[in-house]
Amino acid sequence: MVTNMPQSDRMSFSEAERRGVYRAIFERRDIRAQFLPKPIPDHVLGRLLDAAHHAPSVGFMQPWDFIVIRSNTIRKSVHDCFLEANRQAAEIYTGERRALYESLKLEGILASPVNLCITCDRSREKGAGVGRQSDPDTVLYSTVCAIQNLWLAARAESLGVGWVSILDPRPIARLARDTRGIGARRLSVRRLCFGISGRTGVGIGRLESRESLTRLIHFDRWDQRDEQRAAELFELLPANGAQK
Amino acid sequence: MVTNMPQSDRMSFSEAERRGVYRAIFERRDIRAQFLPKPIPDHVLGRLLDAAHHAPSVGFMQPWDFIVIRSNTIRKSVHDCFLEANRQAAEIYTGERRALYESLKLEGILASPVNLCITCDRSREKGAGVGRQSDPDTVLYSTVCAIQNLWLAARAESLGVGWVSILDPRPIARLARDTRGIGARRLSVRRLCFGISGRTGVGIGRLESRESLTRLIHFDRWDQRDEQRAAELFELLPANGAQK
Repeated sequence: MVTNMPQSDRMSFSEAERRGVYRAIFERRDIRAQFLPKPIPDHVLGRLLDAAHHAPSVGFMQPWDFIVIRSNTIRKSVHDCFLEANRQAAEIYTGERRALYESLKLEGILASPVNLCITCDRSREKGAGVGRQSDPDTVLYSTVCAIQNLWLAARAESLGVGWVSILDPRPIARLARDTRGIGARRLSVRRLCFGISGRTGVGIGRLESRESLTRLIHFDRWDQRDEQRAAELFELLPANGAQK
Repeated sequence: MVTNMPQSDRMSFSEAERRGVYRAIFERRDIRAQFLPKPIPDHVLGRLLDAAHHAPSVGFMQPWDFIVIRSNTIRKSVHDCFLEANRQAAEIYTGERRALYESLKLEGILASPVNLCITCDRSREKGAGVGRQSDPDTVLYSTVCAIQNLWLAARAESLGVGWVSILDPRPIARLARDTRGIGARRLSVRRLCFGISGRTGVGIGRLESRESLTRLIHFDRWDQRDEQRAAELFELLPANGAQK
């Protein structure tokens, strides 16, 4: 607990509220399988979109739009794009790695009850350019923050979300144009599949393990990495924290 | 409430835990002022870094490192970079807009007790390339998810965080190299300032307002925007949700 907080009770979190935030962060997983064939209630979907809409955005630009996709026809077209991108991606692996790669479940486009396409409009005028002149990609980062908000809120609602990253942006942008209305200027499109799921993982753990956090912490300068000093940050960490 | 959840009690969130997640999301603000001159306890900093480290990352790549910066000398150099970038940024505004822009508090580099530099290493081999061949920038998005995790956890700890986006990446990368060790391959550097703060806002509301969420929701296709149908998603939303 932080004991020297100046905030009023109204501002500070109860133990249970704080635990909820860390649970959502630690228990969030990338879900692409075992979605149940149950619809997501409208008001829950509304809460998730509202959570996304409250992400930070550079200059309060709010560059996102949300396309809620239930149409099987559209999802089939997106799935075809995935199959092609994944076929190309698999080619860099050989032997056992290839077999392992091909056994991974990397999307849930058709299996999930809802897909969500989150766009990023770089040309939106809201925000008057504040904060995005030094690094124009900050507008993309704002959209990513919206996605992470939605992902954590979904965990709190016991819903599974998967981010499908194996999609060539070009055919996806063409597809978006084919369905009319997204001009070429709105290039950036991210896709999530989500639904009610009993699963908690995606299987990537078979391929890769969590890095030790103490190896990733530096003090003041890049060359001042000190694992022992870093470990001291975690001495009081409760047991529900994950492996360091 | 979602009533048709298949999960066991162990998996689902209590009302208070769920409220904590939404509170963190709705009450998070970008804080750059009124930091109190109190240090952040080590174990709280540890929890925040652990939250960041549990972000999703493409192929479980975990491309981030965390530089915890308390040195005044280094913060002064970064602040000089901000002043130069901000001087250039201000030039696009004239008249009242210029005066308004110059009244905004856009960084807390020197005022906050801790700065955090979060790097993104595109060359890290963890993850074996899974998921990042179609869009190499997914590695950046992973780092942004880590930042958003930390930001929300900080809210739960009653700590204020500000993301300083008005920094030209080039001098910042040079500065990182001058402090030795960050090679050219680690180009992407984001900076946060954070500390204990009584403030809840940054003042951007004077410049820009929140967009209506119902205007940003589309159904199946970009050209199928339906504000009335979108509004139905929010009919059951509790009053603590923000303006639609």
